[in-house]
Amino acid sequence: MNSEYKHIVIIGAGFAGLFAAKKLSGRNVRVTIIDRNNYHTFNPLLYQVGAAEIEPDQIAYPVRTFIRKKANIDFLMANVEKINFKKDTVVTDRGDIKYDFLIFSPGSSSGYFGIKGAENNSTTLKSLDDALRLRNHILRMFERASKCDDPSERDKCLTFVIVGGGPTGVEFAGAFAEFVNGPLRKDYPHIDSHEVRICLVDAAGQLLGAYSPKSAEYAKRKLEKMNVAVSLNRTVKEVKPGEIILGDGERLKSHTILWTAGVSGVAIKSDIKIADRKDARVTVDEYLRPGGCDNVFICGDMAYLEQSGKPLPMNAPVATQQGIHSAINILRLINGKTLKPFRYGDRGSMVTIGRNSAITKAAGFEFRGFIAWVLWLFIHIFYLIGFRNKILVMISWFRDYLFFERSGKMIIPSE
Amino acid sequence: MNSEYKHIVIIGAGFAGLFAAKKLSGRNVRVTIIDRNNYHTFNPLLYQVGAAEIEPDQIAYPVRTFIRKKANIDFLMANVEKINFKKDTVVTDRGDIKYDFLIFSPGSSSGYFGIKGAENNSTTLKSLDDALRLRNHILRMFERASKCDDPSERDKCLTFVIVGGGPTGVEFAGAFAEFVNGPLRKDYPHIDSHEVRICLVDAAGQLLGAYSPKSAEYAKRKLEKMNVAVSLNRTVKEVKPGEIILGDGERLKSHTILWTAGVSGVAIKSDIKIADRKDARVTVDEYLRPGGCDNVFICGDMAYLEQSGKPLPMNAPVATQQGIHSAINILRLINGKTLKPFRYGDRGSMVTIGRNSAITKAAGFEFRGFIAWVLWLFIHIFYLIGFRNKILVMISWFRDYLFFERSGKMIIPSE
Repeated sequence: MNSEYKHIVIIGAGFAGLFAAKKLSGRNVRVTIIDRNNYHTFNPLLYQVGAAEIEPDQIAYPVRTFIRKKANIDFLMANVEKINFKKDTVVTDRGDIKYDFLIFSPGSSSGYFGIKGAENNSTTLKSLDDALRLRNHILRMFERASKCDDPSERDKCLTFVIVGGGPTGVEFAGAFAEFVNGPLRKDYPHIDSHEVRICLVDAAGQLLGAYSPKSAEYAKRKLEKMNVAVSLNRTVKEVKPGEIILGDGERLKSHTILWTAGVSGVAIKSDIKIADRKDARVTVDEYLRPGGCDNVFICGDMAYLEQSGKPLPMNAPVATQQGIHSAINILRLINGKTLKPFRYGDRGSMVTIGRNSAITKAAGFEFRGFIAWVLWLFIHIFYLIGFRNKILVMISWFRDYLFFERSGKMIIPSE
Repeated sequence: MNSEYKHIVIIGAGFAGLFAAKKLSGRNVRVTIIDRNNYHTFNPLLYQVGAAEIEPDQIAYPVRTFIRKKANIDFLMANVEKINFKKDTVVTDRGDIKYDFLIFSPGSSSGYFGIKGAENNSTTLKSLDDALRLRNHILRMFERASKCDDPSERDKCLTFVIVGGGPTGVEFAGAFAEFVNGPLRKDYPHIDSHEVRICLVDAAGQLLGAYSPKSAEYAKRKLEKMNVAVSLNRTVKEVKPGEIILGDGERLKSHTILWTAGVSGVAIKSDIKIADRKDARVTVDEYLRPGGCDNVFICGDMAYLEQSGKPLPMNAPVATQQGIHSAINILRLINGKTLKPFRYGDRGSMVTIGRNSAITKAAGFEFRGFIAWVLWLFIHIFYLIGFRNKILVMISWFRDYLFFERSGKMIIPSE
């Protein structure tokens, strides 16, 4: 690598970071991707790992394998401790990294709206580690319940509360309900599937706020058919260990409280405070830059940008397009050209509710049902990185579909 | 289940335990399998998980799925804390379990021959957790070395010492060397593959003591061709953090010391001391019973039994046959018949040394080379439990073979 080339540092090997790197591959720049994990995660399918549908390795792809034939790109597995914007330096636990341009796309973390106890007493589904932990925890709860003489303890093991009726909450609820009604019912003959309670709680009046009321009603009906108790218009007052207290005073006792209700930015120390929003995200200009740092581009969940009067969603397509766009703009700057403003091209979104059911939104229309579900399968397979992963996920899905079985029923690792 | 039926408790869902359970399925007995994990592990392929060749879930199979259609068999995921042989009770962290007959097949743990520091400063390959930890550790060492300015630290990261030239040591060394020479070389362009040192140390004068000197020489030659430094006739004096001291005073500095040299019994508390041997195993009579407990049968690695003047090996075929035999003898006792003595039918053994090379021993003959390797593949696929696992392992092997690639290069979980 030519050391006179400009050095572009990318924080985060998510959709934004990886697609930015791809765009910069083979160009006259040096690129370093920094991530705490040595792999990219296909986040849209995290809930399936949580529900034992697929294995962690099937939605993860090693960054080093991704950059293998991209000679101008390097990878550093490290935790980012601080960013010194004034000195163009990223401080990591593996040393300081100087940059000429920075693409900052660290993703997001869970948001708790200041609700008492929520952060400490609930579990989330934001990373592969989270998903694996959730799955192992669920299996342990079933093991515990299978030999438990105390009825209230047994009840706490078999009650699962999901807070948040967005895509993650809805998709996980559906996949988990099918896991309970199928494979787990067969594996635990001493547990009646009616003893298992899955509660989906949301403060809003409908599920899936981004979709039409008709689609939301469809999702609710589908979930209820799978024995998921959907509670709308219900706020959460407090979360205690083993208990969640709703706004109206009702208490749900449960060892499993999954929090999917809020998303916020990732708190990273820096010499200039760029996160201006209450949810720790950064308002960016039309070139995806925060105020005051002309060589920094913020992409993905961390960036707050409005378009046509509405904030852009925090999802994979937005992150992907922003990553590519920032890479292009950096190349333009290096070549003395002017920046191009970012404009998100919405190609649609989709959400699945268990076997055979999905909602697809594209070009202003919404489709529901089996066709939407088949489309969902193909789109997700298509976007999975790596041939092996595509094959393995297809096999897992095919097997689940035909045999009502799940692959990930082993508690690994044991601790 | 008829509660008047005799209750047979099986400790350990390994080969002995699972095959005993299978034999007892559908008979007029109640069976409870106890294991700390909720899955059976196909131990012969553990080293492949350690070397990132296959995924943990591919050689694990849920016990509950195994017993699904076996109505008289139950499973308890628990840690065994003590056995009260006088009261016919197994004490676990999930409560006490009374038995009429006990099949005790807990497997084995590593043996350290009292070598100073060996247990605390080395890693082992005895469980799926071990294998996963080893793999993640190896990948972390490569990540650390890839950006390390201190040459001696870099050297410690890239030196891997394997103690023990038995099947586990030899098979792991071969699979690991191929991982280093293939995928890791491509993923870490800044690490020269000659910087990586793999040392296999054994106190004996030949590798694979159970095989002929000619086969042992073949294995040594194959390993050396893959850049594994094989040191025979060398004892270990002490293991310190990051360092192993050999009998002749030589010191190898390394962050990875894998101990495969010794095997010993599993230490479990009991009211009657049955483990009579120095290696914590139990000498059993020809019916696989320890002295003084007529309703207890010891199977697998834990049992010490000589046949034709030689101790039986600690491997899967012996465990399997002992498990089945104990189940038959228990049924005979219940039906008022006399016990049948156990006799191991040796159907051969095999060991693989990387791509295309293996040694197969059967009917007094030893075969070496490609045919032995193909045989090895088919036998192992055949014995893997579960259709899905067979398919997935075949895909992994096929891919590794064709593309010189490995699947498990992601550090999951991250902690």
